[in-house]
Amino acid sequence: MSTTVHATPGTPFVEVTREFDAPRDVVLRAWTDPELVDRWMGPRRLGTRIDRWERDAHGGSWRYVNIEPDGTEYGFHGVFHPTSDPYTLLQTFEFEGAPGHVSLDELKLTEEGGRTVARIRSVFQTVEARDAMVAAGMEGGMNEGFERLDAAG
Amino acid sequence: MSTTVHATPGTPFVEVTREFDAPRDVVLRAWTDPELVDRWMGPRRLGTRIDRWERDAHGGSWRYVNIEPDGTEYGFHGVFHPTSDPYTLLQTFEFEGAPGHVSLDELKLTEEGGRTVARIRSVFQTVEARDAMVAAGMEGGMNEGFERLDAAG
Repeated sequence: MSTTVHATPGTPFVEVTREFDAPRDVVLRAWTDPELVDRWMGPRRLGTRIDRWERDAHGGSWRYVNIEPDGTEYGFHGVFHPTSDPYTLLQTFEFEGAPGHVSLDELKLTEEGGRTVARIRSVFQTVEARDAMVAAGMEGGMNEGFERLDAAG
Repeated sequence: MSTTVHATPGTPFVEVTREFDAPRDVVLRAWTDPELVDRWMGPRRLGTRIDRWERDAHGGSWRYVNIEPDGTEYGFHGVFHPTSDPYTLLQTFEFEGAPGHVSLDELKLTEEGGRTVARIRSVFQTVEARDAMVAAGMEGGMNEGFERLDAAG
């Protein structure tokens, strides 16, 4: 399935839309259960290890690493912001290779006819940080992750 | 002291600069110690009660309420995102009267000659949410809080 990415020039936003051929409860579980997240999140050539995935009523925190075949690790971490809708996830995101640049990422899952549309809206602290993340190939890694998620479904 | 507020039209950012006549360790404590936060945060006419202020190495969460003289309460909550610089605080912020609209707020404290400059950079999930928060009188309440902080110094 195809992924739509909008990153309007001069804004700090990235909007991603992706459809999955599965009910939204299944997609939600793949995004929230750490034992499933580590099977698909990130580029295909990298392994994923969840170091921390602690969600609680008030928030909680997470950290995972992507691992190159040679053992090099790329760490990511953030905190969960609680939401009232179980199909809306909101969290901060920081790549430890670019410390101090944090985004606020919202995922909304809607279902129609057994298929799920995932809408991600990220906002960065600056337009420059957004541009850097897009230039770093965010879209490619994300797409490969989504394809792994398709295959797992 | 005067507060500078920039909210460039068409962007989701609010930038606030305020100087305090105190060293930055004192200002930092006023912003991070819940027993001090409740003495100054918010408009002058409202009381403040800290319901939760739990900062830990990975983040943590907070909630406080502003209280009208007639007992009406306005709740706010969010999570702390960890930073490597002790003089940079980063957290999410949600007014419970407008649920689902979350900002990511960064505070940086720098010191020169015993005086502290506080720079706050907030980014909202949409330009519309930023505009609504500015229209709701964010600046007035913030200024009154800063004046209470001056008086406490």
